[in-house]
Amino acid sequence: MLDPSVKELAQGKNFAVITVHLPSGAAATQVMWVDADDDHIVMNTEVHRAKFKALEADPRVTVTIWDQANPYHYAEVRGRVASTERGPEARAMIDRLSQKYLGTDYQREVESERVTIRIAPERQRTQ
Amino acid sequence: MLDPSVKELAQGKNFAVITVHLPSGAAATQVMWVDADDDHIVMNTEVHRAKFKALEADPRVTVTIWDQANPYHYAEVRGRVASTERGPEARAMIDRLSQKYLGTDYQREVESERVTIRIAPERQRTQ
Repeated sequence: MLDPSVKELAQGKNFAVITVHLPSGAAATQVMWVDADDDHIVMNTEVHRAKFKALEADPRVTVTIWDQANPYHYAEVRGRVASTERGPEARAMIDRLSQKYLGTDYQREVESERVTIRIAPERQRTQ
Repeated sequence: MLDPSVKELAQGKNFAVITVHLPSGAAATQVMWVDADDDHIVMNTEVHRAKFKALEADPRVTVTIWDQANPYHYAEVRGRVASTERGPEARAMIDRLSQKYLGTDYQREVESERVTIRIAPERQRTQ
C-alpha cells in the first residue's frame, strides 16, 4: 500500500523524476507526470521509449515526487513495475493526466502506443 | 564543459534530484540544492550521509535539475564525481548555497563535516 503522504504528493499536481536502470548500468532519469492508486505509483509513457524498454528489461524503478509549491517536501519510492497496460485504457489514462496538469485531453501525437505503468513500492520515504 | 543551458539551470534558484548507485544496486535519490562552475555540477553534503558513502564506493551519478517556474524545462546530467573538497571551503560553499536559496548563511547544525562534490558530465541533455 502507498503511504498516505506519498499518495497525496502523487495525486496532486506535482511532477516526478523517474529513474530507470539502463543495460549499461547507468541511471537514466526523466521529469514526468505522475498519479497514484491506493497501492501503486501510476505513470504513462509510450512503448517505443528508452525508459519503457529499460523497465521491460529491469523492472526496478525509483520515483521522486516533490511538492511543486515546496520542493523541500518530497517523496522517494523505490519499487518495481507491477503491471503494464496498453490499449484504450492507457490512452484514457494519459487523457486523465493531461486533464490534471493542463486542463485538456492529451493533445500531442501518440508516436507508438501509450502504456500505463503501475509501480509497487518496496521502500517509501517522505520528507 | 557544462552546456550553457545546464549551467544556467544549475546556477538558478532551482532544485535537483541526485541519483546514486547503492551497493545493493538500487538507485537512491534525494532532492538537493545545486550549483555549477564552468565544468562541473556542484553539490554539497556531509561526509556521514549514505549518498556520500555511495559516491565514494561508486562515483557514477545522475543529476536532474528542473526550472522551478516551469518543470517541463529540465536538464539531466550523467557523470562521475571528479573531486571532493572538505574543510573551510566546503563550509563556505554550503553558506553560499544557503544564501542562494534562503538568503542567509546555513543555519542547520553540521553533524559531521560538509563536503563539496564536483561532478564532471559525461552526457548532458536539456529539454
